[in-house]
Amino acid sequence: MTEVLQKEAALETELVQKAKKAKAAAGELAKADTTLKNKALELISQQLMAEKDFILKENAKDIEAGRASGMSESLVDRLKLDEGRLAEMADALIQLTELTDPVGEVLEHWQQPNGLDMTKVRVPLGVVGMIYEARPNVTVDASSLCLKTGNAVVLRGSSTAIHSNTAIVSVIHRALEQSELPVDSVQLLEDTSREAASAMFKLNDYLDVLIPRGGANLIKTVVADSTVPVLETGAGNCHVYIDETADKDMAIDIALNAKTQRPSVCNSCETILVHEKWAEQHLPELIEALQAKDVKIHGDDKAQQSGSGIIPAEDADWGTEYLAYELALKMVGSVDEVVKHINQYGTKHSEAIISENADSVQQFFTEVDAAAVYHNASTRFTDGFEFGFGAEIGISTQKLHARGPMGLPALTSTKYIIKGNGQTK
Amino acid sequence: MTEVLQKEAALETELVQKAKKAKAAAGELAKADTTLKNKALELISQQLMAEKDFILKENAKDIEAGRASGMSESLVDRLKLDEGRLAEMADALIQLTELTDPVGEVLEHWQQPNGLDMTKVRVPLGVVGMIYEARPNVTVDASSLCLKTGNAVVLRGSSTAIHSNTAIVSVIHRALEQSELPVDSVQLLEDTSREAASAMFKLNDYLDVLIPRGGANLIKTVVADSTVPVLETGAGNCHVYIDETADKDMAIDIALNAKTQRPSVCNSCETILVHEKWAEQHLPELIEALQAKDVKIHGDDKAQQSGSGIIPAEDADWGTEYLAYELALKMVGSVDEVVKHINQYGTKHSEAIISENADSVQQFFTEVDAAAVYHNASTRFTDGFEFGFGAEIGISTQKLHARGPMGLPALTSTKYIIKGNGQTK
Repeated sequence: MTEVLQKEAALETELVQKAKKAKAAAGELAKADTTLKNKALELISQQLMAEKDFILKENAKDIEAGRASGMSESLVDRLKLDEGRLAEMADALIQLTELTDPVGEVLEHWQQPNGLDMTKVRVPLGVVGMIYEARPNVTVDASSLCLKTGNAVVLRGSSTAIHSNTAIVSVIHRALEQSELPVDSVQLLEDTSREAASAMFKLNDYLDVLIPRGGANLIKTVVADSTVPVLETGAGNCHVYIDETADKDMAIDIALNAKTQRPSVCNSCETILVHEKWAEQHLPELIEALQAKDVKIHGDDKAQQSGSGIIPAEDADWGTEYLAYELALKMVGSVDEVVKHINQYGTKHSEAIISENADSVQQFFTEVDAAAVYHNASTRFTDGFEFGFGAEIGISTQKLHARGPMGLPALTSTKYIIKGNGQTK
Repeated sequence: MTEVLQKEAALETELVQKAKKAKAAAGELAKADTTLKNKALELISQQLMAEKDFILKENAKDIEAGRASGMSESLVDRLKLDEGRLAEMADALIQLTELTDPVGEVLEHWQQPNGLDMTKVRVPLGVVGMIYEARPNVTVDASSLCLKTGNAVVLRGSSTAIHSNTAIVSVIHRALEQSELPVDSVQLLEDTSREAASAMFKLNDYLDVLIPRGGANLIKTVVADSTVPVLETGAGNCHVYIDETADKDMAIDIALNAKTQRPSVCNSCETILVHEKWAEQHLPELIEALQAKDVKIHGDDKAQQSGSGIIPAEDADWGTEYLAYELALKMVGSVDEVVKHINQYGTKHSEAIISENADSVQQFFTEVDAAAVYHNASTRFTDGFEFGFGAEIGISTQKLHARGPMGLPALTSTKYIIKGNGQTK
């Protein structure tokens, strides 16, 4: 066997082995009632705190390796755990026990004329594959959301977090040993190579769904290469449109919030579209307010004339997700133009209109193609917690299965249960 | 340019051109209310009858070409239209106008503590890509279901039905011209090459979902190669399990119905599993009843001892979808064994237990992983019309988005509409 073939065989062994274990565990998990699942979450919460020193010690190895390899401080910060962050994770597990278990929920129940009794119920998906980047908190997050919904999970984290992830999963396993759920419910791939990830993309026999969490490139690769159904999360090129009739202070407040409250996240605003008539009166004030918050502006001609230090916008700017204190600024003449622009450049995530004109708002709501459309509110609200879901697996930008912030029900499928008394017609 | 490159460029032109038109039409369709959509369906129904001679003349060309190329009579039958079939299609369009329009349905509505008013509504998917085999009725069927749900559609039918499909789509276009919906809502690819189909698989910028309708190979190819999200329909390796406590006559009735009423469809039974204790008393009678209906049996040792003319079952038989008067027959000792067998060999479609034991039924319902699980009824009921949906896009065997028979709501997505008064926190 060549070295490459040996490596491939070894990869397949770990992945397929663990996926098989997860699938077997999924069969048991589907039978577990809410009490057993909540008990397991409590045990994991306790075990995380009981073994916090061990986890922090292992996390320190990742931090050290990261710094040694020149990792940026912002990435180090995403990787780093401390007592406070661990306590938050432990606390989130307890909060999760308080949420309604979607599994078993009766979605529809009816009788057919021939006497068949039909019920549509929520059931677990089965085995969830999770591919994610540096943050080790996703390891706890994904595992606990899957357990709560009766799913087994195969985790493939980043190589930069391998010590942290391995430690956390060993802690989860020690908690599951004390529970009535199968220890095999949570599987972590030790192999963090690209080849191992690629093999996951094709594992349709064992994985029911693949969820990528991370940057645009990761998600793009998974969507392009996976034959396992994907729950696409992520990219957000979100717009705030300030209509002719927008209240000045409200418009500026919302624009500032949408751009600057947390620029690195997908629901932050990347382009502000301004109606020409509103711009005539208020554009300089908007520009000043943004620049006072150190926002770099790529503007069209009118924007450039209305303030200093504005970079001329290029075509590429309309499609750029800056994820920084930076945005594009463009004048528009009508809601028609807004709809056209957003549907061309947007990523179908979150879009806001600031307006006092009901017709404009209605047109925006109907014609803009996005998971969430806002009137007189910030795009920053697109989030499972802000929506009141109590948990979030991610924000779906696809149209099938789940769209927008995904709570626990997004991790379920359905099953028709049909009761008869001998019907053949 | 080489010949191949020239061909590729030409392909892309037709496909991308038509997909762009469909996308533009989808924007208009999303705004159309139920009355306009129903009016268009009525016009199509009338136009189909008004131009029936034209459609039948064009269909005759496909039949002639099919026979000349040695097409089997069963395929010719699938391809053939006549006045009766056209009248059925026209009638189905009128029935569709009577179904509830899912678009605009409010699925959830709540207030957040900060005053945000949150609504989750059903919206069209956008542009549906449909790849299907010989039957020209799918052209009308897919177009009308998409129009009813406010979606545009790009149709890629079989080369063997190209005259029929072209004629039908031209008739649909003439009907749409009289309606208020965009004529471009329905697009048919003239190019029926594999290359054109493959290009559709990657058309994420224009297609929101791809629905394959046809044989197992077509569906497998689409699932494996498409980066556009797929609504998987199709393969059904369905089981009837006759429990120890099953009523003899009911069990034999259901087994016969599930296998012989229409063996060529995905919800027909392919393997009968029989509890050993039931078999001791009734197996010869079951075998006789099946053989009296000319069903060829691939049986295990016990089955071979209980009847004559039984072919020894091989491992491959447990995974075979015969789609014919042919099935596999196997003895089992427990519901555990049944669950294991079905979850290993089944295609997660439809599974039935015939039993008078409530515990066995409950275990079967919980542990068998399938879109539809039946107690004392035939698997043949897995069908949108039998479920009372009034329409069917296909039967989903995947777990995301829709599972089991798909009615009109499966052709919709959702959108969150959020109304505020200036909220930023």
